[in-house]
Amino acid sequence: MALIKKPTTGMKDVLPREMQIRDYVTSLVKETYSTFGFTPIETPAVEHIENLSSKQGGENEKLIFKILKRGEKLVIGADSSEDDLVDSGLRYDLTVPLSRYYSNNASQLPAPFKALQIGPVWRADRPQKGRFRQFVQCDIDILGEPSNLAEIELILATTTLLGRLDFSDFSVRINDRRILKAMAAYSGFEEKDLDTVFIILDKMDKIGIDGVREDLVANGFDAASVDKYISLFEGNKEGIGFIEELSQKLGDFLPEGCADSLTGIIKSVERVKKADFSVIFDPTLVRGMSYYTGTIFEITMNEFSSSVAGGGRYDEMIGKFTGNKVCACGFSIGFERIITILLDKDFKVPAKGEKMAFLIEKGADSDFIASVMEEAAALREKGQCVLVSMMNKNKKFQKEQLEKDGFSSDNIKEFYHSDFKV
Amino acid sequence: MALIKKPTTGMKDVLPREMQIRDYVTSLVKETYSTFGFTPIETPAVEHIENLSSKQGGENEKLIFKILKRGEKLVIGADSSEDDLVDSGLRYDLTVPLSRYYSNNASQLPAPFKALQIGPVWRADRPQKGRFRQFVQCDIDILGEPSNLAEIELILATTTLLGRLDFSDFSVRINDRRILKAMAAYSGFEEKDLDTVFIILDKMDKIGIDGVREDLVANGFDAASVDKYISLFEGNKEGIGFIEELSQKLGDFLPEGCADSLTGIIKSVERVKKADFSVIFDPTLVRGMSYYTGTIFEITMNEFSSSVAGGGRYDEMIGKFTGNKVCACGFSIGFERIITILLDKDFKVPAKGEKMAFLIEKGADSDFIASVMEEAAALREKGQCVLVSMMNKNKKFQKEQLEKDGFSSDNIKEFYHSDFKV
Repeated sequence: MALIKKPTTGMKDVLPREMQIRDYVTSLVKETYSTFGFTPIETPAVEHIENLSSKQGGENEKLIFKILKRGEKLVIGADSSEDDLVDSGLRYDLTVPLSRYYSNNASQLPAPFKALQIGPVWRADRPQKGRFRQFVQCDIDILGEPSNLAEIELILATTTLLGRLDFSDFSVRINDRRILKAMAAYSGFEEKDLDTVFIILDKMDKIGIDGVREDLVANGFDAASVDKYISLFEGNKEGIGFIEELSQKLGDFLPEGCADSLTGIIKSVERVKKADFSVIFDPTLVRGMSYYTGTIFEITMNEFSSSVAGGGRYDEMIGKFTGNKVCACGFSIGFERIITILLDKDFKVPAKGEKMAFLIEKGADSDFIASVMEEAAALREKGQCVLVSMMNKNKKFQKEQLEKDGFSSDNIKEFYHSDFKV
Repeated sequence: MALIKKPTTGMKDVLPREMQIRDYVTSLVKETYSTFGFTPIETPAVEHIENLSSKQGGENEKLIFKILKRGEKLVIGADSSEDDLVDSGLRYDLTVPLSRYYSNNASQLPAPFKALQIGPVWRADRPQKGRFRQFVQCDIDILGEPSNLAEIELILATTTLLGRLDFSDFSVRINDRRILKAMAAYSGFEEKDLDTVFIILDKMDKIGIDGVREDLVANGFDAASVDKYISLFEGNKEGIGFIEELSQKLGDFLPEGCADSLTGIIKSVERVKKADFSVIFDPTLVRGMSYYTGTIFEITMNEFSSSVAGGGRYDEMIGKFTGNKVCACGFSIGFERIITILLDKDFKVPAKGEKMAFLIEKGADSDFIASVMEEAAALREKGQCVLVSMMNKNKKFQKEQLEKDGFSSDNIKEFYHSDFKV
């Protein structure tokens, strides 16, 4: 029977050119984070359906690829809900597996634990251009480090990575959930309204400060509160002095040490950074995930006005999963976004020497082939790529194809039997 | 809700020590095969259920993790068979996806196409020690190369890899399906009996030549045929001269060029090889897969008497899938077997310089932290691993843990606030 040739809906075959870039970025990720003491780990693609449906995954829980029970556990025709049919599913992120991994293995892991995960996740999203149902996520997390050393390390490591990928002209925007909350509380908003307020605030870069004001009023919030809130965002909001200024205003609304911690992160990163970027305090930065408890941060490519990495501190989440409180801070790097940017700018993976192609005349005997292979082996031992092929009848076409595949014509060498018969 | 802490049945969390070895082997695989001109490719984990059930997968088709249909396509309670419930599944090998990939993308791929695939596959096997339901396969294949250059390249590349992993004392055993068939036909066995004959022959290393003879007779085969067959295996079967000798005897039963091709492979590999091993013609080598059409080979670690890699030529298979005949030759490397061997012999991944740990006194201000981070950054830039942590109250315990994790006590450096106050 003939195969269905296309991949399943929304999934893709990775062609050699893209694969080369993916492999390069993957190895750079592993190399860079390992110098910062991050340890790569791996969890199975398949997770318990209970773990995937624990309400921590938000909307993603609607997009699970579910796996059919097997053997006696599956009774065909006797199902009254999906629960009767499935026992597991493909992971939709790396956070649920990390939590399970940590709770299963903590006694065998260093403390604090600096984890690097890079691997595929699956979401049965509506198929659309550039968005796939299997894609790679890349997460770094520090578990068990309460101080801002975690944030400093995460930001330094990730910006070092971006610098090594020749990315420049990006910014790290940083804020703290506790500042967000304090600003809202100081202005008179109630706890129960915070989600709505933050969703509106999050639109600042699109609708501007006046848009945010209008939207808040339109949502029925008290005009005095809205005015007080809006006035907090005025002034030189990007300077580090602004944190101090805000902190003075907010007084007891802000937990002690919060402003100092944030200032410390910005100062340390600015002083130690190895790439060309700035760290900006951005009191309008919200980030969607409700599990963040402290610092939040995002890296934006100025050229693309899109985020390539984001994260923050989530000191409560792992405890909810495992029963023991574990402070945690993490960064999720937009692996697929980075690959798309590199493909778009026709990025060339740095090669180890030039690729060579050896073409052997047809009908070669084994002595002849061995001689060519010996010459190839000497170069290969030095790490150089040598492609050995039999010469086609249409040699011209063959060489054109090789040039398309990146072999320069100077590096295509022909071997004729007669050369060895002397 | 608390998570289920253990992975799903038969799957595993990869702990840091094993992960380090897995990453090392993976990068060595990619590096080594790339010097031989192999191109890494990637296919989705999820395949069409039709492709997975096309009868090419043999017993593995019974072990598929099947994926539930989604949305309107799934009607709960209306199922009369699994077909009503599933539309896809997790791949159980890399051969079906390679065939689909090649038929989907051949026009964009070089000819011949030298593919490297390394990735997880899933089989819902009965759980047992050391055998997991998710495991990594590593396949190299050359599509579109009819000459024995394919075999020579595959064997040279794979033995180079094993040599770079410090494996020695292994052998490459090689045979040809056409020799197997010719020996049986010459002895008077019928085509329909070949599977049975080969299954018995395959037991040679366990039951010896007399055992094979007895078993054949016990299966009701003609005594004269059995004697004629057994006599073919006598003599110095490991020498290259034996191929010539056999070839003389078999005469027209053996297709032209078959013996020369095999001799050519052995001679070329012996001359060019970069690792310590021998290539042995083994007329008793059978290999199970029925799709092989020519050369077959296997690499055995003499120490473990188990195969670490195996493969052969399968010129008919891709055509069956795709409709167009494409000659093909491939090697499957036992990735998990190699990892187990390395873990058992306590293999140490070569490190880039020694790992350093910096411990910072608690209560450090941001200037102090930044100074330590600058010192770390200078070493990290050179590729060295520097772990920066806050100093614990129980410093002695912390340092013991670090030593367990591979930081030698000389490489643990303490930073006190007072050092920076001078």
